[in-house]
Amino acid sequence: MKMHQWTLLVISAFLSILMGLAPAFAQTAPTSAGPVDPKLIEDLVAANRILAAEGILDGWGHVSVRHPKNPNRYLMSRNLAAELVTIADIMEYDLDSVPVDGRGRDLYSERFIHGEILKARPDVNAVIHTHAPPLIPFTVTKVALRPMYHRAAFVAQGIPVFEIREGFGMTDMLIRNQAHGQSLAKVLSDKPAALMRGHGAIVVAPSLPRLVGRSVFLVKNATLQQQALALGGPINYLDAEEARLIEAREGYGLGRAWEAWKRKVEIK
Amino acid sequence: MKMHQWTLLVISAFLSILMGLAPAFAQTAPTSAGPVDPKLIEDLVAANRILAAEGILDGWGHVSVRHPKNPNRYLMSRNLAAELVTIADIMEYDLDSVPVDGRGRDLYSERFIHGEILKARPDVNAVIHTHAPPLIPFTVTKVALRPMYHRAAFVAQGIPVFEIREGFGMTDMLIRNQAHGQSLAKVLSDKPAALMRGHGAIVVAPSLPRLVGRSVFLVKNATLQQQALALGGPINYLDAEEARLIEAREGYGLGRAWEAWKRKVEIK
Amino acid sequence: MKMHQWTLLVISAFLSILMGLAPAFAQTAPTSAGPVDPKLIEDLVAANRILAAEGILDGWGHVSVRHPKNPNRYLMSRNLAAELVTIADIMEYDLDSVPVDGRGRDLYSERFIHGEILKARPDVNAVIHTHAPPLIPFTVTKVALRPMYHRAAFVAQGIPVFEIREGFGMTDMLIRNQAHGQSLAKVLSDKPAALMRGHGAIVVAPSLPRLVGRSVFLVKNATLQQQALALGGPINYLDAEEARLIEAREGYGLGRAWEAWKRKVEIK
Amino acid sequence: MKMHQWTLLVISAFLSILMGLAPAFAQTAPTSAGPVDPKLIEDLVAANRILAAEGILDGWGHVSVRHPKNPNRYLMSRNLAAELVTIADIMEYDLDSVPVDGRGRDLYSERFIHGEILKARPDVNAVIHTHAPPLIPFTVTKVALRPMYHRAAFVAQGIPVFEIREGFGMTDMLIRNQAHGQSLAKVLSDKPAALMRGHGAIVVAPSLPRLVGRSVFLVKNATLQQQALALGGPINYLDAEEARLIEAREGYGLGRAWEAWKRKVEIK
Repeated sequence: MKMHQWTLLVISAFLSILMGLAPAFAQTAPTSAGPVDPKLIEDLVAANRILAAEGILDGWGHVSVRHPKNPNRYLMSRNLAAELVTIADIMEYDLDSVPVDGRGRDLYSERFIHGEILKARPDVNAVIHTHAPPLIPFTVTKVALRPMYHRAAFVAQGIPVFEIREGFGMTDMLIRNQAHGQSLAKVLSDKPAALMRGHGAIVVAPSLPRLVGRSVFLVKNATLQQQALALGGPINYLDAEEARLIEAREGYGLGRAWEAWKRKVEIK
Repeated sequence: MKMHQWTLLVISAFLSILMGLAPAFAQTAPTSAGPVDPKLIEDLVAANRILAAEGILDGWGHVSVRHPKNPNRYLMSRNLAAELVTIADIMEYDLDSVPVDGRGRDLYSERFIHGEILKARPDVNAVIHTHAPPLIPFTVTKVALRPMYHRAAFVAQGIPVFEIREGFGMTDMLIRNQAHGQSLAKVLSDKPAALMRGHGAIVVAPSLPRLVGRSVFLVKNATLQQQALALGGPINYLDAEEARLIEAREGYGLGRAWEAWKRKVEIK
Repeated sequence: MKMHQWTLLVISAFLSILMGLAPAFAQTAPTSAGPVDPKLIEDLVAANRILAAEGILDGWGHVSVRHPKNPNRYLMSRNLAAELVTIADIMEYDLDSVPVDGRGRDLYSERFIHGEILKARPDVNAVIHTHAPPLIPFTVTKVALRPMYHRAAFVAQGIPVFEIREGFGMTDMLIRNQAHGQSLAKVLSDKPAALMRGHGAIVVAPSLPRLVGRSVFLVKNATLQQQALALGGPINYLDAEEARLIEAREGYGLGRAWEAWKRKVEIK
Repeated sequence: MKMHQWTLLVISAFLSILMGLAPAFAQTAPTSAGPVDPKLIEDLVAANRILAAEGILDGWGHVSVRHPKNPNRYLMSRNLAAELVTIADIMEYDLDSVPVDGRGRDLYSERFIHGEILKARPDVNAVIHTHAPPLIPFTVTKVALRPMYHRAAFVAQGIPVFEIREGFGMTDMLIRNQAHGQSLAKVLSDKPAALMRGHGAIVVAPSLPRLVGRSVFLVKNATLQQQALALGGPINYLDAEEARLIEAREGYGLGRAWEAWKRKVEIK
């Protein structure tokens, strides 16, 4: 072994240690971005419960929101079924998905979805991971989701499909680490949602009400597209320009539905 | 420029000003047609809540009824999800969809649907705008709705499809003004309902109970027709004469169902 | 006009008067078969409410049971949506569907279904008329209902389709009189159920629990057959001998389900 | 008749008596394996109610768990619809499905499913028999269930179809005795579930939470596969190795869903 080989070995060993320690430090170290307006926490709890009531979050899915005071922090429940989430279950994480104040609480094993997407997408403030059944058939066939109606206009931007086999071969399908999360974020690119083959989907949005709306309408769009395809083509999908004009509407008219959705769930 | 050209210019300018002012006046000016039997208001609230419970009105749809004392006025909620509408939310509008007593309340942006249809159809006293999911596939394919069973006999009159692109090109799909509303009313013509491509539908009727019945059965008909088509043809649809005889029944037998529907919802 | 023509005219006029008077007498005249075990009335109310909860009776369907003391009388609600029926609403009818004690109460216009089937089928003690949606597609296509699974074994006996056009041409589709009812009973023949084209179905059984079971499983069978046909054939239906052995079981094992169904509804 | 024929006759008569008596003794005789942790009984009641709430246990299905202190005993409700089962209804059986303390209570006629599967499968501790509707179409067509998504990974092991005609010809389709149960257990082999033609399915698992999870996801998989097939192939099913890695996860991540499911049902 020559000298420069030794050098490389030492450097790479040193880097390995650093890389190994980094998460360790991170896991103990992230500082809080400070208290959050209780209304945002309430909205996050509401989003959990609305999406559970709508059949979009089952025992396993999760939803997060970016910390309003620090773009490098996000808020999400401890490991809990969405319908059971309360204000006390909301935790703060850094973008490596390390909790600020873990206190030994159990965490979502797929929390890296949230951290890595929030890293890659400064325009995004809210993220959901769902296994909504009507989406699954579109994750395993070659039929692309296309925009059926005005409420699902964002579908016109294209909904890519993430195939975990491409980067990682055979796995247990979960987004178990930052590398998985980064790969998913790369497939998502600048789109509003991505399907995950044989697994589910992620949806992103600039706000929680918008995220809930997108989630509900993405799932409805899948059902409607399935039905329209069964009726037989050709299908007159939304035009890209129609979709753009709809998405450009200020507020998108979601206030009214958000009010009705919140009224139906218990926030505590 | 000749004299008569000047004259034309002056006249058209004058007309433009009048047309411009008309809405302005209208927005401050329409007079009330006076108090309404509280039972009608209760029925309008009930219709909102029944149609929400039946999945026909979501966070955005709306339902109106013509004022019984003045055919140029109608009643409809302020901008609110149907399931949340109460007696206090009902407002009076003229047929240009200007509120009699706005008091700064937020209005449905698509209220012009109601005003313009009530203008064009003196036989109609109740109007709904819905995004009921089973209808959407029929708005984007070439399969026409046809009457599957006696409850949906009115479908035999023909359910046209409104394509907003034809009159207005690329839009955000909403019926945002009187011109949109008039165009929709023209496609509706003398029919009991019209689909709206990639958006939803409108249904009209001589009374609120009849409107609720038509809305429920239009949506069921869509689901049943989808299933029958999947079983394979030919389909033995209602005959036009059967449909005519059913529609001609006095009261249409709706009293019994209306009583049951109302019992299930809260009116306050 | 010759003498024998006059004779015919007089005879036919006399017969017309008799036929006209008969119902008039009947409507005032049938005597009660006497009080009924309150448990049977409770079961009839329960059947109404169970079938409404299962989506089989909507605002219009109805269910009857034969009077246990007199096979020429039956019990059924006054004109009321099934989910609203209470003990006080149950009335007694003769087999011409004339109420024993009308007291001006509104009656189901299609009550003749019950009277005429109970006349024609001494083995039947309970009858339902339903518009259950999953059945409708099978009433208008050429696909016959066939037995998908053990709970729907009775389907193996064959489910005929009643076409009102055959005997009566263009109508409003309702079973409005005894002639309609007799025609329907003839198509039903000795079968456990009959579909009605573009309208719904009737189901018959020796008891109320058996009727509720048959109604629930007929509707499930329709849904399952639709799905199996979509998966693609051939379909391995129940064998006629399997169906016979299942139907021959004493009590058919319905006690357990009847108990659970009753527990879920309110009887008052 | 020769001497050795007499001998055979006597031996066979003796054997017949023994075989006849065995069940008689068994029915009076099995000893209890002793009291069980109340938490397990609660979990069994919860499983009944969760599976009823999820539409997987109807008026007839049933669920059992192996006795933790004696692998030759199991626990299951008396003959009762799953949604009505309470702690007081749980009984102990031996693996011939004879109750330890019958006290004349009515038993599930198909209890032999549980005893025979628990005999044949020492790795199994919980068994369900279901008539969940989405499974039925897959029992009568030639389309095999295949794994659509990660939650249904166990489907990759293969879901055989039990055809009772093969061993027993024409029957009333029920698993009425040990021979039927053994035949079913043989078809199940080492798999996590088996469909039963024109009847339903059985699902097995090492624990109650795992059984509930498998039941829910087997049924969802059927619905999703039906939809994906309707969209058109090819379908990208889970790879066998992916399925193996998912199933190998410790705990399988079911705790969170089990907690939410239990919260929704009443245990008494």
